[in-house]
Amino acid sequence: MRSEKHMYDKIFELGKKRGIVYPSFEVYGGLSGFIDWGPIGVRIKRNVEKLLRKTYVHELECLEVECPNLHPEEVFEASGHIKSFADYMTECTMCGEPYRADHLIGDERGIEVEGKSKTEINNYLSEIKCPKCSGDLGEAYSYNLMFETSVGPGKSKKTTYLRPETAQSTYIGFNRLWQVARRTLPFGVLQVGRSYRNEISPRQGMIRLREFNQAEIQFFYDPNNMFVEGFEEVSDIKVEILDKNEQTHKLSLGEAYREKVIGNQVLAYHLGVAYRFFQSIGLPGERLVLRQHREDERSFYSSDTWDIEYISGELGKIEMVGIALRSDYDLTQHAKYSGKNFSVTTENGKFTPHVVEVAYGVDRPIYCLLESCLDDRGFALKREVSPYDVCVFPLVKKDGVDVKAREIYGKLKKEGLSVFYDKAGSIGKRYARSDEIGISYCVTVDYDTLEDDTVTLRVRSDKSQVRKKTSEVIGIL
Amino acid sequence: MRSEKHMYDKIFELGKKRGIVYPSFEVYGGLSGFIDWGPIGVRIKRNVEKLLRKTYVHELECLEVECPNLHPEEVFEASGHIKSFADYMTECTMCGEPYRADHLIGDERGIEVEGKSKTEINNYLSEIKCPKCSGDLGEAYSYNLMFETSVGPGKSKKTTYLRPETAQSTYIGFNRLWQVARRTLPFGVLQVGRSYRNEISPRQGMIRLREFNQAEIQFFYDPNNMFVEGFEEVSDIKVEILDKNEQTHKLSLGEAYREKVIGNQVLAYHLGVAYRFFQSIGLPGERLVLRQHREDERSFYSSDTWDIEYISGELGKIEMVGIALRSDYDLTQHAKYSGKNFSVTTENGKFTPHVVEVAYGVDRPIYCLLESCLDDRGFALKREVSPYDVCVFPLVKKDGVDVKAREIYGKLKKEGLSVFYDKAGSIGKRYARSDEIGISYCVTVDYDTLEDDTVTLRVRSDKSQVRKKTSEVIGIL
Repeated sequence: MRSEKHMYDKIFELGKKRGIVYPSFEVYGGLSGFIDWGPIGVRIKRNVEKLLRKTYVHELECLEVECPNLHPEEVFEASGHIKSFADYMTECTMCGEPYRADHLIGDERGIEVEGKSKTEINNYLSEIKCPKCSGDLGEAYSYNLMFETSVGPGKSKKTTYLRPETAQSTYIGFNRLWQVARRTLPFGVLQVGRSYRNEISPRQGMIRLREFNQAEIQFFYDPNNMFVEGFEEVSDIKVEILDKNEQTHKLSLGEAYREKVIGNQVLAYHLGVAYRFFQSIGLPGERLVLRQHREDERSFYSSDTWDIEYISGELGKIEMVGIALRSDYDLTQHAKYSGKNFSVTTENGKFTPHVVEVAYGVDRPIYCLLESCLDDRGFALKREVSPYDVCVFPLVKKDGVDVKAREIYGKLKKEGLSVFYDKAGSIGKRYARSDEIGISYCVTVDYDTLEDDTVTLRVRSDKSQVRKKTSEVIGIL
Repeated sequence: MRSEKHMYDKIFELGKKRGIVYPSFEVYGGLSGFIDWGPIGVRIKRNVEKLLRKTYVHELECLEVECPNLHPEEVFEASGHIKSFADYMTECTMCGEPYRADHLIGDERGIEVEGKSKTEINNYLSEIKCPKCSGDLGEAYSYNLMFETSVGPGKSKKTTYLRPETAQSTYIGFNRLWQVARRTLPFGVLQVGRSYRNEISPRQGMIRLREFNQAEIQFFYDPNNMFVEGFEEVSDIKVEILDKNEQTHKLSLGEAYREKVIGNQVLAYHLGVAYRFFQSIGLPGERLVLRQHREDERSFYSSDTWDIEYISGELGKIEMVGIALRSDYDLTQHAKYSGKNFSVTTENGKFTPHVVEVAYGVDRPIYCLLESCLDDRGFALKREVSPYDVCVFPLVKKDGVDVKAREIYGKLKKEGLSVFYDKAGSIGKRYARSDEIGISYCVTVDYDTLEDDTVTLRVRSDKSQVRKKTSEVIGIL
């Protein structure tokens, strides 16, 4: 535990120091639940998003949309968020300190109250005193987690909310998307963007944010044809499964589907695609668990929901993606509230498509990635997500060595590589800085380079150094 | 005029029909000032953003950050937005209809009231009746354009605003960015993201949005060293200039700087970089004007501000980027309000860096692009911003032609190309659909392909068709 605590501190320390990620509004004392992605972090994030688009847009041929963050209230009346996207709160009757009821009961009594009634929650609260001042706690009340604002002036003022998920704006555009998809099922629609939840007490750095990045894909299916052509592409992937009865299985996805541990081929397929994506960014398979939601935690409209969780050394299980069979619930709700048609007509007749949602957080997997790849020199990131492809160092800043180094730097950039030029401090220090942020390769330019156009290529993973012609280096990179 | 009106309608009609851009929340009656980027539009937008990053991140070596959209009020107290980011409003005393005072006075009296006092505005309003019901108009009042909400529950509730620009969150992170930039000036910081303005009456489709996309770059300079190494890279660019005295000049940027039409080399340089960027996405130079702000429209802290405007056939002048000398105003304000240090120490002593801001809208240039490239077949987009690199069509859906076409489709995708597969309707119809959204190349697979692996490569620009080996096509693309 000691060493892992140390690791956790180190991630944030290094994240701040090297411009990866840091608390927002620091100069004004901060605001919990908000982070800045710094210059190095943005490069990692872009690479993760690029690989995500490679998977879903390029390979799975999903459409992609970008919708507003502000939505009018009708959207969330239909979706049910206005009514039920809420947590129970309580406040101390003495000092006024607000608490999230389930967290407080969990912390003080070790009891999990998810799904419990308001009466039960009040019973627990009546036995707990304010941890701050020992005062009595007030009645639990429902606290909606959406941020509310209004659009437009005067009598035309309209109540709006910052979206708590990207999904709803994808659903309400269904009829336009159906046209773009050439009226053929299934099709998927990705949306990458911000979402917002007014968490009562966001506690864990990057894990529970009030403003966060999502990448959600809505797949629209014919409910009578929930099969996948390419299932064999993922069926050999071996995974660890924790099912809704909290039984553990170690199986391939093909076996899991055949043995009905995963009851639906589309679910099994998308779990496989997501698992493969996580591996592609560098998350180790042995830290990943496919967890099925228990009956009592699943939304009423979903017949089956799974998460892929990362087993953190420090923070327990971290949900990185949720994959849910959402039935025709969302489209039907929007049809009902808008009075518009959301059904389709295919050779199988007229029906409302069913949704399989693949909902990624973007911030969390990057945290997990940083944690999983931390070694004694920094973040051992895979080349594909590393902030730069290569560093270029001039051994000295004189005798034309620096000029030659700038020239090689320019050449590598022209090849489309992302290159970091570093001329400060000893070569050892420059290696150390490059290692910290996980750059796979360093190129050192020295006096010999001026003679024979060779450079030292140093590899982060094994610290090996080889002498290569500049042209060879370009080939390797 | 008739034909241009027709053109304007056509852009939106085609934009909606082909999934480029459409009004948000359509099924709920819409909400003006909000748009969805549809699946084809997102592809164009990504390409534009990619070219923007190529210019600023890859070539100019800017850092990039991503900060929250919600900011605590302290940020905007310091920046001045709470006090002065406002328009004058009036409401009809009879029917309650709200109006933006300057628009109403402009529409009804043809008078430009920017910079006029509240008393003067009230004088004009007293002579105007409500256009809707002919009632008297109420007193003008100041209406802040930021969306307000609050974060956190109970007594810990905090007033926050959706940012009206990305710039402030870049400024307040200056000290961290200064470290990442290795304490060396100048350096630039890009932020791409959403911003929000609660416009009173957004009127022109994509031009005046309440939620919009920005790409703003803050360059931090030593005020005693406002020169640029690479000025000669842009000095030959010939531009049309409208100066602050509304005089027109046709000059190269080098001449404009030498003749002091543009009084600062850094400004001239960044105008050149932005001009070149607009050309790289396909905007024709003859539609671009570099316009200097008049003394009476410039912010008090800016000593010089320029826009690059697109001369629309329909909508007049559209500001696509604003480039401003912002002095040390922003950093000094945040230092004052936060009590933190925002000065730096270099070999030239201790000082607060000066900011040159390059503030792009993202939505507007794309509208301008669509307008500028509209031809009789659709949007003649440049390959670099086109939604797909190439279409693949099987001539028929039988005899193995479709199988071969899928195979070629797969091969092109493996090369990293974005490929659209279209098997519906006649080849002529498929060309027409491809032409509408500006795809440069179409590949048709037919019976001969099965024999000799040749395909028909058709080019949008001149409708030429040539027979090529599949391998040659990959080379061309």
